[in-house]
Amino acid sequence: MAASALEALIDALHLLPGVGQKSAQRMAFHLLQHDRVGAQTLADALDTALHDVRHCERCHTFTEAPVCSTCLDPERDPKLLCVVETPADQAAMERTGSYKGLYFVLMGRLSPLDGIGVSDIGLQALMDRTADGVVDEVIVATNFTAEGEATSHVIAEALKSREVRVTRLARGVPIGSELEHVDLGTIAHALVARR
Amino acid sequence: MAASALEALIDALHLLPGVGQKSAQRMAFHLLQHDRVGAQTLADALDTALHDVRHCERCHTFTEAPVCSTCLDPERDPKLLCVVETPADQAAMERTGSYKGLYFVLMGRLSPLDGIGVSDIGLQALMDRTADGVVDEVIVATNFTAEGEATSHVIAEALKSREVRVTRLARGVPIGSELEHVDLGTIAHALVARR
Ligand SMILES: [Zn+2]
Ligand SMILES: [Zn+2]
Repeated sequence: MAASALEALIDALHLLPGVGQKSAQRMAFHLLQHDRVGAQTLADALDTALHDVRHCERCHTFTEAPVCSTCLDPERDPKLLCVVETPADQAAMERTGSYKGLYFVLMGRLSPLDGIGVSDIGLQALMDRTADGVVDEVIVATNFTAEGEATSHVIAEALKSREVRVTRLARGVPIGSELEHVDLGTIAHALVARR
Repeated sequence: MAASALEALIDALHLLPGVGQKSAQRMAFHLLQHDRVGAQTLADALDTALHDVRHCERCHTFTEAPVCSTCLDPERDPKLLCVVETPADQAAMERTGSYKGLYFVLMGRLSPLDGIGVSDIGLQALMDRTADGVVDEVIVATNFTAEGEATSHVIAEALKSREVRVTRLARGVPIGSELEHVDLGTIAHALVARR
């Protein structure tokens, strides 16, 4: 139990990821001394988001409507379903301007060490989503990290018996990079996958 | 104007000192996906602090009452007044357990480059505070930075004509430090001030 409103605020800011005790103290001081308008803006934004933001029934991303605007967009190709870990990854895909299909957002990744298993990433919901008779390709765009690769593997296995093609984003040397600065695993993979 | 409640929350988190756009996005995602209780706790703590936290009429530190508990403590020696920059500095002084006087908290420091001048650090309030006929020593414990030293200098000049003794925390080699790791200016000063 915090002894004062100030300590309660410091403790609450300390709950934010990446914010230590010292940073929380500095933030509380800044808000109360120099930016009370910002503090009120943050309090209101938290209340509004907690009240209004939910998950899209179709793709699981954050939305304020039952189904998000991307899922409702008739210009999108419903035969393509891209699986990403987070809304930030979806945003990165969108910024490329080169993908016109739909999405499924896992809102996480498999991470057995953190106790995040198959049920936490909505694998069953993904199975149901791909069984709509329209999707014919699932593009797995999880991150190229150990956890992202494991997640990709589990998804590919689960979809094996389905009538859908499962693809993975190509791995290789990033555009604009110099070979001497690219890690060896990436170069080795790009050599094997040369075409 | 943010397009959605989620973007409004990201923008509001981005107002916090030291939080960039990417961190704000990660925080919003974490709060909405993994810690809604924490998000509500933070919203409530902000509201409560904005409503309840004010400045002590005597020492200017944060308090929920008109006068803070330190200023009201009859065990404190009212003849001693320690001037610090922030409540965090005051807390550091208190942790030493070796100071039993009262405080004046500037809630800042002189910083001409940031447009923070004499009126912003409550110099006049400090003058009024020291004119109570009880204070006979003002211990200036601003930080030993360029800005803290400048602040200390201005305070000492302003108090020159008063009937109070103005002292400064001693500078020297920190206890427990090895000379080879102490900066040269500190060693030089400690040599001149040897006793
Ligand atoms: Zn959707
Ligand atoms: Zn006080």
